[in-house]
Amino acid sequence: MLRNTNMRWRLPLVCFLWEIAMIVLFGVFVRYDITADPHWADHMKKNNITSNIENDFYFRYPSFQDVHVMIFVGFGFLMTFLQRYGFGSVGFNFLLAAFGIQWALLMQGWFHAFDTGKITIGVQSLINADFCVGSVCIAFGAVLGKVSPVQLMIMTLFQVTLFAVNEWILLNKLHVNDAGGSMTIHTFGAYFGLTVTWILNRPNLKQRNDKEGSVYHSDLFSMIGTLYLWMYWPSFNSAISDHGDAQLRAAINTYCSLASCVLTTVAISSVVNKKGKLEMVHIQNATLAGGVAVGTAAEMMLSPYGSLIVGFICGIVSTLGFTYLSPILSSKLKLHDTCGIHNLHAMPGLIGGIVGAVTAACATEGVYTAEGLKKMFRFENEYASRTPSIQGGYQAAGICVSLAFGLVGGTVVGFILKLPFWGDPEDENCFDDVVYWELPHEEDEDNGHTF
Amino acid sequence: MLRNTNMRWRLPLVCFLWEIAMIVLFGVFVRYDITADPHWADHMKKNNITSNIENDFYFRYPSFQDVHVMIFVGFGFLMTFLQRYGFGSVGFNFLLAAFGIQWALLMQGWFHAFDTGKITIGVQSLINADFCVGSVCIAFGAVLGKVSPVQLMIMTLFQVTLFAVNEWILLNKLHVNDAGGSMTIHTFGAYFGLTVTWILNRPNLKQRNDKEGSVYHSDLFSMIGTLYLWMYWPSFNSAISDHGDAQLRAAINTYCSLASCVLTTVAISSVVNKKGKLEMVHIQNATLAGGVAVGTAAEMMLSPYGSLIVGFICGIVSTLGFTYLSPILSSKLKLHDTCGIHNLHAMPGLIGGIVGAVTAACATEGVYTAEGLKKMFRFENEYASRTPSIQGGYQAAGICVSLAFGLVGGTVVGFILKLPFWGDPEDENCFDDVVYWELPHEEDEDNGHTF
Amino acid sequence: MLRNTNMRWRLPLVCFLWEIAMIVLFGVFVRYDITADPHWADHMKKNNITSNIENDFYFRYPSFQDVHVMIFVGFGFLMTFLQRYGFGSVGFNFLLAAFGIQWALLMQGWFHAFDTGKITIGVQSLINADFCVGSVCIAFGAVLGKVSPVQLMIMTLFQVTLFAVNEWILLNKLHVNDAGGSMTIHTFGAYFGLTVTWILNRPNLKQRNDKEGSVYHSDLFSMIGTLYLWMYWPSFNSAISDHGDAQLRAAINTYCSLASCVLTTVAISSVVNKKGKLEMVHIQNATLAGGVAVGTAAEMMLSPYGSLIVGFICGIVSTLGFTYLSPILSSKLKLHDTCGIHNLHAMPGLIGGIVGAVTAACATEGVYTAEGLKKMFRFENEYASRTPSIQGGYQAAGICVSLAFGLVGGTVVGFILKLPFWGDPEDENCFDDVVYWELPHEEDEDNGHTF
Repeated sequence: MLRNTNMRWRLPLVCFLWEIAMIVLFGVFVRYDITADPHWADHMKKNNITSNIENDFYFRYPSFQDVHVMIFVGFGFLMTFLQRYGFGSVGFNFLLAAFGIQWALLMQGWFHAFDTGKITIGVQSLINADFCVGSVCIAFGAVLGKVSPVQLMIMTLFQVTLFAVNEWILLNKLHVNDAGGSMTIHTFGAYFGLTVTWILNRPNLKQRNDKEGSVYHSDLFSMIGTLYLWMYWPSFNSAISDHGDAQLRAAINTYCSLASCVLTTVAISSVVNKKGKLEMVHIQNATLAGGVAVGTAAEMMLSPYGSLIVGFICGIVSTLGFTYLSPILSSKLKLHDTCGIHNLHAMPGLIGGIVGAVTAACATEGVYTAEGLKKMFRFENEYASRTPSIQGGYQAAGICVSLAFGLVGGTVVGFILKLPFWGDPEDENCFDDVVYWELPHEEDEDNGHTF
Repeated sequence: MLRNTNMRWRLPLVCFLWEIAMIVLFGVFVRYDITADPHWADHMKKNNITSNIENDFYFRYPSFQDVHVMIFVGFGFLMTFLQRYGFGSVGFNFLLAAFGIQWALLMQGWFHAFDTGKITIGVQSLINADFCVGSVCIAFGAVLGKVSPVQLMIMTLFQVTLFAVNEWILLNKLHVNDAGGSMTIHTFGAYFGLTVTWILNRPNLKQRNDKEGSVYHSDLFSMIGTLYLWMYWPSFNSAISDHGDAQLRAAINTYCSLASCVLTTVAISSVVNKKGKLEMVHIQNATLAGGVAVGTAAEMMLSPYGSLIVGFICGIVSTLGFTYLSPILSSKLKLHDTCGIHNLHAMPGLIGGIVGAVTAACATEGVYTAEGLKKMFRFENEYASRTPSIQGGYQAAGICVSLAFGLVGGTVVGFILKLPFWGDPEDENCFDDVVYWELPHEEDEDNGHTF
Repeated sequence: MLRNTNMRWRLPLVCFLWEIAMIVLFGVFVRYDITADPHWADHMKKNNITSNIENDFYFRYPSFQDVHVMIFVGFGFLMTFLQRYGFGSVGFNFLLAAFGIQWALLMQGWFHAFDTGKITIGVQSLINADFCVGSVCIAFGAVLGKVSPVQLMIMTLFQVTLFAVNEWILLNKLHVNDAGGSMTIHTFGAYFGLTVTWILNRPNLKQRNDKEGSVYHSDLFSMIGTLYLWMYWPSFNSAISDHGDAQLRAAINTYCSLASCVLTTVAISSVVNKKGKLEMVHIQNATLAGGVAVGTAAEMMLSPYGSLIVGFICGIVSTLGFTYLSPILSSKLKLHDTCGIHNLHAMPGLIGGIVGAVTAACATEGVYTAEGLKKMFRFENEYASRTPSIQGGYQAAGICVSLAFGLVGGTVVGFILKLPFWGDPEDENCFDDVVYWELPHEEDEDNGHTF
């Protein structure tokens, strides 16, 4: 029996109902942050605030825009490498991210709204929502081409929810640092997506579907995504750091790590090929691993050469992963990972968590100053007695929690998505836009794809 | 008789003469703003200004750059969806915008230079010039593929002029708010363009020209434009708002409205298709309607859920417009609107004007504070006695004035462009770059377009 | 004998060894700038600094990001116009820039680290490194499609070194102004690249290789590069100017010059074509000449109409260069310049140097104020007695030094790259990605390239 992939009532229903739910929930819970409220002037007087800087637009807005571009253009176009799934890549990414940011504003907001019962949103909330959706975009990479838009909406709903819980545990209960989200975004997002795709296993999907490859121009579209992710990653890892030295370090460290990563990616890509030729899939993906892997430690005193070393290692690990590990995962474990997020997000995410834990454990007052150390790791109130080495332990715990959330959450959501009425495509229609998109009439239909 | 589409003397002449005119006029009238003049230091002393913030580069520059990207990459690539008009879309948009910003600096400058006789330009002038040109890019969408570059230059000259007059009436005489230009940019620009294309009516143009469709990769290029418009729209609507809470609200409201709009666009796009498939033209365009429709009210206390509602409605209206209204306009009214700007800019622009008027009329001191209300609507000097409900009336008047300027101006300019010597293409050459561009030799010319 | 273009050991070896060298050198020399160090708080107390503005992230970061986009997306995609060299254009540009910025941080750092022995890096260092790499991207344009990635790495190593020396001589010994790098980046970079390609002369390369042309979609990819360069050029020329009026002027002047340049480019492109048709290569390149040519004078009191004139002239010169000069250089001088950098960077760079020298020589206290004049040209300490006319002379000397560095450096590096073991492609494989890239399997291999 052919599956029914007609989305005519399912997709509109999901979109409408959920958007109406958003409107109701926003109406009940969401208000402007005081910085975006005309009562700011009163607030200043009441609290003896003398500077307007906190409600200045450009306090974090440029970082927000860079992150925003990464989510929509970066991830969207990165996935357009498939020859006939460009519409799905960029279009579904657009859809799930647009829904995800609304739901993330609510979920992340509720965790900070215990006292007042209201969620107040400002530019930093928008950045955090984009961060949260970043983890969904990562998971999308694993199931790319094999699921319906309804499944993606459901996955987004659950993943955003789990993200918010996991993030709250890490930042508020374990009290760890994770500026660029090596743990909360990459480790969680990647293992979540990998588990989902593993459960949605399609045993009859050919090892190498014809449509699963790229064509010349689709690889160039994909490079647009790669470059925007690469260029703006320093903004990503520094977007929510404290103003001042921490934020500057986060940008510098990420810049160094990414630069180094490009060279080792190219080196490995060439050396594993018989003729020494480069593979676009490596350049498109592994060059970004350096950004993932300094996600936790970016704002710490990792030092520029430390960042170079992290990037150096991750370029190697990620490229080798694409070459040797992915085929094994696919054939032995039946883990089909369309974009290779295991190589770009999962492994580098774990490395990033470990680098963060080690860098935290090695922190000294000599390097950070006594004041700086407190500020960096928020050793205050109930955490005032923490030492760097204990902090390192908690950081390590954060990796495990994120991993667990990804695996357990992915399992549950995977089984939900396995239900037979979500309209996912037949095996032979995977990686093909024709299932969910009205395609333009090509000039010469008989020739197949003459675009 | 075949029309002469050879641009060899007409286009160079127009470009040269007009650029020389620009140089002369700039020489006579344009000077640096005091913030960009070395006399700033003296100015500070004389006026007891103690802070450098007003002449700081980053006071508005990041917003300027985002708007700049929207005009050149956003509009330019949005229109590349046509299979054989990519050069014209991005190239002519580049040409008219480059001329338009110069002329806009002059036109908008003259309206603020009554006293000194000199136009002084700073970063805010550059943003305003880009805004003005935005309305021309919108109108370009209606006539895309059917006019010559000389016609576009002439249209730009007149439209920028009319824009400046209309804007001056709205902002200075009616004293209305229009931060993101729902009225001045979208309503005016769209109805202007629609009237022009209606007058340039080509009765023999086939309802569905072969070349008027897209191909797979041209739709992906177009998505680059869509995404940059979508992502940077919060910067657009907030670019010239007062620093502080108004600017933050403008960004947050736009973000919310756009996110909501994506979901209803997808829903309607799927539900109007027999097989539930999505149409790229909807995703490329209707997802942006939410940004248009909060253009006036973005900086007001629309509230986040109010913004969601506006986006919700506009996604529906715009997508339905593409599906049902555009074919009717084309067949009954002989209104051929290449990019569907009626659905993306005209209707959402009107909605935006109305939302702005209602939001203004409903403003209370409780919500804005007494001080905030005055500041928001500039209730000062001769306008000190205005109340919000009166303001709402003036806002509504602003919609009508913009509409009238668009319709009347478009009529006049349409007839000018109808003159037979501007080199517009034959019906069968519409939507084809070959008329005005030296095209690259494809590998296999016989096969037609094998790109 | 066929040359061995297998990169399997050469490229990985170069990448690995050089990256390890970077790590070692960074470990020994590179530290965070005080603004990015937790000791900033102590530093403030010690030096009685009361404002945090200098270590604020957004002090220059938005400019950095714009410049970063120009280097990686701007230059990378600008060069994708070749029908079968898109991977090489964007991929090798990525590789050389990622290596170049690391080496530039070291080279430029050493010239400022005589006293402490340590290089301290902050956001401004990142901008300067990107600037330096910009000159390599320019030179890459001349040899595009004719060299191996190993040759590019070697060229980058030497060119960055020479750039740093030349820049140091200009800025510190000649004490000239060159905010946007007309001399240090464009003149030096372009003549360096032209000399290298001249020495690497391939006498048997057909005047017009089949693969040296563009196809429809490759020209559109190239326009992405063009537009990002064009839009962000105001950020480029103002990125390292003093905050305040100088930085604002740099952006305004560049904006004006670029706008003007588009119109004359279109005019000439149309007039030199028999049928008055526009050529994409002109629109892609000559429209940018206006940005190059105000690189030195952008921050000076060039005045808006002066900027328009500069752009006006450069659009003409550059387009005429593409039409008439390039073919002559190629046939008579055997100078094969793939991207036409002579027209976009060399000639406009020289014009830019001259405009800068003249503008400096004409500076008066009336225009700049006494204080402003000193600040603009750093007439202080040993340079306190310089007058504007003397400054103009030194500016002119700066052009000559940059030219000499380009020509002599290019000669030396050209001969190094001529050594027979770097793996450059056969003549018939020039401009073809197949030599160094594993290409995707097209659907229909027999048809050749059906992308």
